[in-house]
Amino acid sequence: MPGRRASIPATVAVRVEHVDTPQAIVSIVEHVAAAGGTLRSLTTVRRVPGDPPLAELEVEIEGIDEPILLETLAAVPEVRGSGLTRALDRVFGKRVIVVGGGAQVAQVALGAVSEADRHNLRGERISVDTIPLVGEANIAAAVRAVADLPRARLLVLAGSIMGGDITRAAQELREVGIPVIALNMVGSITDAVDLVVSDPVQAGTMAVMAVADTATFDLARQRGRRY
Amino acid sequence: MPGRRASIPATVAVRVEHVDTPQAIVSIVEHVAAAGGTLRSLTTVRRVPGDPPLAELEVEIEGIDEPILLETLAAVPEVRGSGLTRALDRVFGKRVIVVGGGAQVAQVALGAVSEADRHNLRGERISVDTIPLVGEANIAAAVRAVADLPRARLLVLAGSIMGGDITRAAQELREVGIPVIALNMVGSITDAVDLVVSDPVQAGTMAVMAVADTATFDLARQRGRRY
Repeated sequence: MPGRRASIPATVAVRVEHVDTPQAIVSIVEHVAAAGGTLRSLTTVRRVPGDPPLAELEVEIEGIDEPILLETLAAVPEVRGSGLTRALDRVFGKRVIVVGGGAQVAQVALGAVSEADRHNLRGERISVDTIPLVGEANIAAAVRAVADLPRARLLVLAGSIMGGDITRAAQELREVGIPVIALNMVGSITDAVDLVVSDPVQAGTMAVMAVADTATFDLARQRGRRY
Repeated sequence: MPGRRASIPATVAVRVEHVDTPQAIVSIVEHVAAAGGTLRSLTTVRRVPGDPPLAELEVEIEGIDEPILLETLAAVPEVRGSGLTRALDRVFGKRVIVVGGGAQVAQVALGAVSEADRHNLRGERISVDTIPLVGEANIAAAVRAVADLPRARLLVLAGSIMGGDITRAAQELREVGIPVIALNMVGSITDAVDLVVSDPVQAGTMAVMAVADTATFDLARQRGRRY
């Protein structure tokens, strides 16, 4: 499996309030790079209209210590303030994504949340993130977009009929290192995924077991099976 | 309610493969700013070890058209390739976050996913994202981190006893414009939230109604009530 599951160096997370000009982000990134840091994620979490307009960023930086990062940011002319936060990886952890029809998504979530509870009690951090959608184009777009979601580790497709472009999207997702579990359903999808599970609660449970370091379930050894 | 819920200009989403040096991000941001674009989000989605090591970014840029952005990126020396994707906002939309004990989180998710299904059928995009957690410190950290989650619009606290630092964290979250619904439970949390709902399925349903443009439910008119 490619890079996504490889161990990733720790980042420092920081909230930054800055004057909202296009140059502000350039300044911030330049100062951080000059201090030896690499920007790994950035989210604009809030904008405050006014004169000048302000914006708040949540950023994660690699390769730099917390006190040096705060000092560095304080020297950026556009920055109005900054403070350490906790990297989202440490709070919400690995994400199991569930996409499909509402009734089935809810049952997969039930299994996955219950199983995640057991692992999170033992020090894991696993989130279960869901969206109910209808239609081949919408579902295929969501499957492809899972590759863009930070910390997404596994996708469960929960529905009654899926094929065509959804199947192509699932294959693309597996190629970038994110495995896919599907419910047993009509359509070509069940031939294109890592594992097929008939019961949605069981599918959610197995999905969480597959990503939990606290479990002994190895998806690689189950590849191609149907339960 | 402050900036977070105000309408936000559309962004162009693009996947960028680049040589993974600290200078690469600086180059990309500088070129984009020179072309009139502002970086609004950046996620490192994949790293490919090798010589040189490569990385893949998913970025969203404001203030620049798609063809000009692709041309701009092609001129960055560190960029190996880029292609348009779909902004996550258009795929996964608004996020309702559910945090708390596994049994209750699962029931809130059941109500929220079923209700989101009905609204997404009518053109909405609502996701339901969950994490089961134990302990005041862990839950308070998660509540605070909801402010850092892109597209988070509402938090549901699902548990049997919450107070202390969780209550302070909920107040902070509401101050940045993210409302909070709590189950009816032991502890000070029920005095510090926008709405208290006894039934978890109903809490999930109301949470989705409160963020859906396709619903006529106005949380502001329910503030402080208990159901």
